[in-house]
Amino acid sequence: MTLTVGVIGGGQLARMMIPAATHLGIDLRVFAENDGSPSAIAATQVGDYVDADQVLRFTREAAVDVITFDHEHVPQAVLSALVEAGVAVRPGPNALLYAQDKLLMRARLSELGLPVPEWAAVSTEAELDAFIEAHGGVAIVKTPRGGYDGKGVRVVRRGREANDWFEAPGIGALLAEELVEFRRELAQSVARRPSGDIVAWPVVESVQQNGVCAEVIAPAPNSAGRIADVAEQIAVTVAEGLDVTGVLAVELFETTDDRLLINELAMRPHNTGHWSIEGSTTSQFEQHLRAVLDLPLGATGTRDAWTVMVNVLGGPVGGGLDSRYAKAMAEHPTVKFHSYGKDSRPGRKVGHVSVGGSDLDDAMYQARAAAEILTE
Amino acid sequence: MTLTVGVIGGGQLARMMIPAATHLGIDLRVFAENDGSPSAIAATQVGDYVDADQVLRFTREAAVDVITFDHEHVPQAVLSALVEAGVAVRPGPNALLYAQDKLLMRARLSELGLPVPEWAAVSTEAELDAFIEAHGGVAIVKTPRGGYDGKGVRVVRRGREANDWFEAPGIGALLAEELVEFRRELAQSVARRPSGDIVAWPVVESVQQNGVCAEVIAPAPNSAGRIADVAEQIAVTVAEGLDVTGVLAVELFETTDDRLLINELAMRPHNTGHWSIEGSTTSQFEQHLRAVLDLPLGATGTRDAWTVMVNVLGGPVGGGLDSRYAKAMAEHPTVKFHSYGKDSRPGRKVGHVSVGGSDLDDAMYQARAAAEILTE
Repeated sequence: MTLTVGVIGGGQLARMMIPAATHLGIDLRVFAENDGSPSAIAATQVGDYVDADQVLRFTREAAVDVITFDHEHVPQAVLSALVEAGVAVRPGPNALLYAQDKLLMRARLSELGLPVPEWAAVSTEAELDAFIEAHGGVAIVKTPRGGYDGKGVRVVRRGREANDWFEAPGIGALLAEELVEFRRELAQSVARRPSGDIVAWPVVESVQQNGVCAEVIAPAPNSAGRIADVAEQIAVTVAEGLDVTGVLAVELFETTDDRLLINELAMRPHNTGHWSIEGSTTSQFEQHLRAVLDLPLGATGTRDAWTVMVNVLGGPVGGGLDSRYAKAMAEHPTVKFHSYGKDSRPGRKVGHVSVGGSDLDDAMYQARAAAEILTE
Repeated sequence: MTLTVGVIGGGQLARMMIPAATHLGIDLRVFAENDGSPSAIAATQVGDYVDADQVLRFTREAAVDVITFDHEHVPQAVLSALVEAGVAVRPGPNALLYAQDKLLMRARLSELGLPVPEWAAVSTEAELDAFIEAHGGVAIVKTPRGGYDGKGVRVVRRGREANDWFEAPGIGALLAEELVEFRRELAQSVARRPSGDIVAWPVVESVQQNGVCAEVIAPAPNSAGRIADVAEQIAVTVAEGLDVTGVLAVELFETTDDRLLINELAMRPHNTGHWSIEGSTTSQFEQHLRAVLDLPLGATGTRDAWTVMVNVLGGPVGGGLDSRYAKAMAEHPTVKFHSYGKDSRPGRKVGHVSVGGSDLDDAMYQARAAAEILTE
């Protein structure tokens, strides 16, 4: 019997599930916002994910065994309607809630005793000023919902710098956080089945530029031992505490005083896990499909001493193969190229490159040089 | 600009091009014989590949940059019509001719001075008897066209055992070959661009059962040095001599007196190259797409000391994931599973498994045990 997975959202994460589904013999159906989405290679229905009727019709017509997601923006009302209709939704609404609302997430993680930056919910300029004063004259302020890739995040030194958000309808309270002094950013991915089985990939280092993930090194250099153990323990606790099914990525700060603090969560394959396509025995995309179908999980070991992933931001118009790809391929025969089939805009993630090897410096050089050719 | 590859034939070879095309951002269009083909995940047009008009219409409607193949059965007249219409056909008709007709192939390889079993074209029982008498009382006799996986091949001790073929309309002369005493079978794959660049994977050992490839070990044990060099040199000579573009697989006999003789050729990704999906930096499917598009070729090194591929013959009805897959996944977390989405029939190739590792015995055990669960 062929198993069918329905994916809501047609971005590059849905797209990169296609190779895994093809090899495993899983029928992948996508509910995308518009025609020509990155995942349009798979059988795709176009519709509006905030409309419960449309989403329900998709699940019936595609005869899905389970619904999962390319993004976390499907409203709780739609998720609940699916659950009430008997559709398996993984991760479920009660887990996704914490990926959708950073205030609820911070509150729940604190409740679980997990390490997070100091935080508060602030509803007025005065409350934010008080938080700033109590935290060395600076704070990170975030809209609880809808932010990604640095959007909805500001570093502020005065409460009034967030007044437009306080005054905007529909945002409500903001999340204020201490500005963490960190040495570097790490990310820990795990995958969890509904039956409870859970596996972890090695913790990775993620290098951000302008709030966007630019590079990932897997595993994170100098992370063996305590850091790896603590990172894994944190992610497992989050996955179990929030009842996450599928892949969970936990973005972490490694502080200058040697602590790990949880920055963000993503309940889906994540940019910091793209290295696993070639770098791990089981990629995050294959694992996500196995996990949401409640199939046994695959091995998560590394296939090379080091894997380096570099995002291609901007890049050739149309996101396809052009002479720059030919140049990059000719100069870097060991680099693996991933193009998302997206129109190019400055700074937009249109693909990534990945390379494995025994020498980290060489892998870094190859991946950066190849990505640079594509973004010239 | 997005590049578009049209594939004639919708079998598992076309199917396994989909993951590579998805990652590279290549638009893959398939011309399949019927609905529900293994490659139906990709944009597919159904038609008859012996009808030049239908094939030409496909190339125009799909706006392909190049046409390539899942199989070698497209008639020369159709191939010529494509070339005359200005379509890039890779491999080209003049190369495919030798993959389509074993008599022409043997003649051309002999002309190139390449090592082949002793052979003759025989048109009558008496000619075949004479060949048998001159070769120790036994011969392999093959229909020049249309054979695969042991079909169209017989071991005969008397000429009359091939009389049904001599008498059948449309077969013509048969290929008679000496019965080679071989130690094992090897396979050497290379990929060649129209511009002439050529790369080789390591030579592999292929274990046949009932004329069908059952297992592949990459690289072939005890093949370092002379055997690897000679195998590569043979395949490169064939690719250049026959002007092959794309992937060429050369099946070889390693004789009991330490020679390598060419058995068969395939001008497309081949079962003996499936190991490369996980086992090589560049899989044969990615490399074939790069080669036919005249893009720079990828590195062909191995990613593990050993990779073992075992075919799944028969297996779960529908070729999908069922409880046997769950059992195999649970017991073999490092094994990679490939299901072709084909209906199961006894002995039919419906998928394969692949596993890499530093210990050959363990990899063999894992791959065989996983495949056995799927074919129970």
